[in-house]
Amino acid sequence: MEALPKNPANFAALTPLTFLHRAATVYSTRTSIIYNHNHFTWEQTHTRCRCLATALRSLLHISKNDVVSVLAPNIPAMYEMHFAVPMAGAILNTINTRLDAPTIALILHHSEAKLLFVDYQLVPLASNALRHLREAKAEPLPIIIVIEEPADATTHKNAAGGLEYEELITAGDLTAELPVITDEWDAISLNYTSGTTSAPKGVVYSHRGTYLSTLSLLLQWGMGTEPVYLWSLPMFHCNGWTFTWGIAARGGTNVCIRSTSAEDMYKAITNHGVTHMCCAPVVFNILFDSREAEDHKKKTNFAVEVLTGGAPPPASLLEKVNKMGFHVTHAYGMTEATGAALLCEWRAEWNQLPAEQRARLKARQGISILSLTEVDVKETSRLTMESVPRDGKAVGEIVLRGSSVMKGYFKNEKATAEAFRDGWFLTGDVGVVHQDGYVEIKDRIKDIIISGGENICSMEVEKVLYSYYKVLEAAVVAMPHARWGETPCAFVVVKGEVEKVTEDEILAYCGSNMPRFMVPRKVVFLEELPKNSTGKIEKNKLREMAREFKAGMVKSERSSLQGTKIKKMEKKTTAHSKQSVEKVLGMSRL
Amino acid sequence: MEALPKNPANFAALTPLTFLHRAATVYSTRTSIIYNHNHFTWEQTHTRCRCLATALRSLLHISKNDVVSVLAPNIPAMYEMHFAVPMAGAILNTINTRLDAPTIALILHHSEAKLLFVDYQLVPLASNALRHLREAKAEPLPIIIVIEEPADATTHKNAAGGLEYEELITAGDLTAELPVITDEWDAISLNYTSGTTSAPKGVVYSHRGTYLSTLSLLLQWGMGTEPVYLWSLPMFHCNGWTFTWGIAARGGTNVCIRSTSAEDMYKAITNHGVTHMCCAPVVFNILFDSREAEDHKKKTNFAVEVLTGGAPPPASLLEKVNKMGFHVTHAYGMTEATGAALLCEWRAEWNQLPAEQRARLKARQGISILSLTEVDVKETSRLTMESVPRDGKAVGEIVLRGSSVMKGYFKNEKATAEAFRDGWFLTGDVGVVHQDGYVEIKDRIKDIIISGGENICSMEVEKVLYSYYKVLEAAVVAMPHARWGETPCAFVVVKGEVEKVTEDEILAYCGSNMPRFMVPRKVVFLEELPKNSTGKIEKNKLREMAREFKAGMVKSERSSLQGTKIKKMEKKTTAHSKQSVEKVLGMSRL
Repeated sequence: MEALPKNPANFAALTPLTFLHRAATVYSTRTSIIYNHNHFTWEQTHTRCRCLATALRSLLHISKNDVVSVLAPNIPAMYEMHFAVPMAGAILNTINTRLDAPTIALILHHSEAKLLFVDYQLVPLASNALRHLREAKAEPLPIIIVIEEPADATTHKNAAGGLEYEELITAGDLTAELPVITDEWDAISLNYTSGTTSAPKGVVYSHRGTYLSTLSLLLQWGMGTEPVYLWSLPMFHCNGWTFTWGIAARGGTNVCIRSTSAEDMYKAITNHGVTHMCCAPVVFNILFDSREAEDHKKKTNFAVEVLTGGAPPPASLLEKVNKMGFHVTHAYGMTEATGAALLCEWRAEWNQLPAEQRARLKARQGISILSLTEVDVKETSRLTMESVPRDGKAVGEIVLRGSSVMKGYFKNEKATAEAFRDGWFLTGDVGVVHQDGYVEIKDRIKDIIISGGENICSMEVEKVLYSYYKVLEAAVVAMPHARWGETPCAFVVVKGEVEKVTEDEILAYCGSNMPRFMVPRKVVFLEELPKNSTGKIEKNKLREMAREFKAGMVKSERSSLQGTKIKKMEKKTTAHSKQSVEKVLGMSRL
Repeated sequence: MEALPKNPANFAALTPLTFLHRAATVYSTRTSIIYNHNHFTWEQTHTRCRCLATALRSLLHISKNDVVSVLAPNIPAMYEMHFAVPMAGAILNTINTRLDAPTIALILHHSEAKLLFVDYQLVPLASNALRHLREAKAEPLPIIIVIEEPADATTHKNAAGGLEYEELITAGDLTAELPVITDEWDAISLNYTSGTTSAPKGVVYSHRGTYLSTLSLLLQWGMGTEPVYLWSLPMFHCNGWTFTWGIAARGGTNVCIRSTSAEDMYKAITNHGVTHMCCAPVVFNILFDSREAEDHKKKTNFAVEVLTGGAPPPASLLEKVNKMGFHVTHAYGMTEATGAALLCEWRAEWNQLPAEQRARLKARQGISILSLTEVDVKETSRLTMESVPRDGKAVGEIVLRGSSVMKGYFKNEKATAEAFRDGWFLTGDVGVVHQDGYVEIKDRIKDIIISGGENICSMEVEKVLYSYYKVLEAAVVAMPHARWGETPCAFVVVKGEVEKVTEDEILAYCGSNMPRFMVPRKVVFLEELPKNSTGKIEKNKLREMAREFKAGMVKSERSSLQGTKIKKMEKKTTAHSKQSVEKVLGMSRL
């Protein structure tokens, strides 16, 4: 077989940017974005993105591989930047708006961001972050560009440097050439992990990886033609699980909202005929329990496909929201996998099963998306990398490979090297493979409790705790133990009055619902569990608390329990104190 | 942005072979193939393919880039070879079973096929082809392997060399290593064009191109989970428009049938709950007009998604088959585009339109599939490569670019160079772009009639002829004309008795339904139109006939018409006589 060389007609770098160009060509007059009273067509969105891209290059001297950061909720500008920034050859860095100023400063510094686009409501936060950078003498500082509310331009920009988003678009030049993506391995975006236990890591995506992820997820979620997509999931989470680009691929309509309040979501669903949305399972509470939900429960003509991830959807809510018209699909992923890695593809035969069993099946993480070549569960702790048997029992680490796995961590060779082993990406999640090939997570590796040589999955214990009717939230971590090495310690938030629950009754319930060695040695009642900016429970803080308790204690004394009962966790949404920021900044200056 | 190098965890060559591996892992017990009373699971199909691949390598010494040909209908072996042959590192060449022996000989010789797998019913045809090769002293000859009917093994193999398909699978070794695809640009298959006007050309597909085509078409046709796919489209057409690989990607069920008789198709639909099928529009006649169709018209619980292509679906049948439960989507493509290039994506707003208008919209070729970066209609005749305006009127050549375009023509530098220009693949089809971005074909470039400087699209004239109630089939070609250069000549097959139709009435009908310059100068009545092996009308033969008529004749005489009326075209399904085969073989031996 002789060589038939590549040429520009039969080989094009894979990039999601082609989705926008195509949408402007074949869906030109369809509505691309709705935001309050603003409507755009795909042709307009394409034009606006091209203008912004040319302005970034000509006015702000942005060139290939520069990082452009943005701190904004799900507004049209945030959507447009997913195309405009890479169209300029640059790399988009969306920052979690729930982070505190020191962490944002850390990200801006580590990413070497040239620009920071800031939604007008977040100007104080951004200014605060810049103050941290200035204090740490971390220069040059990124240039700030304020994104005003469309109807309400020029109110805030002067406070922060004088540049405004719409002005940039107006200044763009549609006749100017934009660089062509020739290497699909080029970076398109940089997403920092939440950094529960360490400094945030900068995950780098390629054009190729995001193109493939986008197509695969659209296919496997079954997003049909003319979707109306509600932006309930922040775009700063893995670029909106790739739907930023995916909605352009399908020529759908993006419904942008600033908050995920019940009012905003139900208004959007009613007014715009939303067909699809993504969210963390915690949003189901809002969708079901709010006043607006009560109104919607009476309506029948209502069907929204919901893709959920981040945590398994709680069985109790699945059935209820389904009856309302929210058809939930469960996906599993992580920043490093460009969002979704597994999707719990539903099987028709499961429709016959009782509701409880259906919910259990739906809560499984599922099967690989097609952009991955392989997903497996392997014995990584003993470095054998052997696959575990497909029996739903043997646990191992979930590992992935394929072109939608990240390029690596930005400026972090050590973490990159640790994330990959023997041609696999190690997720750090412990799971099983069921006989039918579906993967189910059991725990994070670092949350496993090793007690007298037995592995205890903290999530297994938590699942039992959650099933107790008085428990609202629960988290189980390792507590040091003189004899067993570690034992489980449970942190519990109760429903209603805390005085009406005792440690004894919880331990008794555990005793009759799990093997003896798994039963927690201590129960601590908290008013709330410590959570990070993405809503994940900060188990490292709980572990610190657990270490303070006397090891070897079989059962805690009532008095000490009372003491912990009233303890309210200091409310902090970051793991990084000002000191640690300066430390990191200082180090990276070396 | 520092380099983050590719590693085996984050970069895998794109290849549809991963779909089979994945299906064996996550859909292991689901039915992969049904054929008569034979059922296979995805795990079995994977195992059988691996066995066949190892046997090809160890027993038949097949290695990288060897061509393996197959001459078979839509039987399980044909499906399996789509994976097994490339798994062995080789290139699959499926041959149109309707070709005659000389053309098959030509393909075998040109492709340098090492092996030829032959369905037992086609052994005489294959033997005949080999006889041609032997006579032309074209050696070495490919080794023949017979595919017996599963229930009926070893009957025919001895007649043709002693090797049988199932024996090869049995001889396979599951523990043997198979090569890994490391370069996604490697060839996966070789598909010869039908060669209406010239010798067949060998179109080479890459692993990358087929992977991307497969995913895109699944997404844009909207093939959901658990499809049951009826193999009504021959797998030898562009690898079954990529659904050979696509059904594995979705873990669906392949329903294999030997023929597209109404009985076989309706039996499959009824017995196996078919959800999807592909076919040329001509199959709609079978689906609607047969005795079996009459039975099915009474049933209501019946819904099959049908993807059609090769020719625009006839409006008259669309509505009728839709009412029966066949929901038709129209795609446009060609061998060189790995099957589908455009798909007529339906828009909800069109549902409100009258049936006739809906049919006209559905007959348009549509919008690009996502594996292409761009589709355009350009002025290629004057080499300007300018895009035509999107007005539904200005005609130009349809051009494509993107990673699902073929690598090129095998051993045919000249044709490859001609097919590509300025970074585009030239389809040779003339079309328009409508305001909404949808492309519609007007003609093949070479079928355009240039009359007194005016371009006449033969398809436009044919469309009018088809709309006349007495016309069953029509084809219009250029006839030399002393004054105008060319004028249209119509060849018509009538419904019912030919004596009841006159040239005058047809010309009168044309006169009141098209501009004067487009009206044919002559009408020739034929019993049937000459067609090639893929069912395409052989206009080159009609052009030859038209050249024989006296040029400049304003209206043909009745007597000469009567002469042509009874003329029956010599029934030949090939453009290649034995002589031409020997000529080509002789040439390629030089």
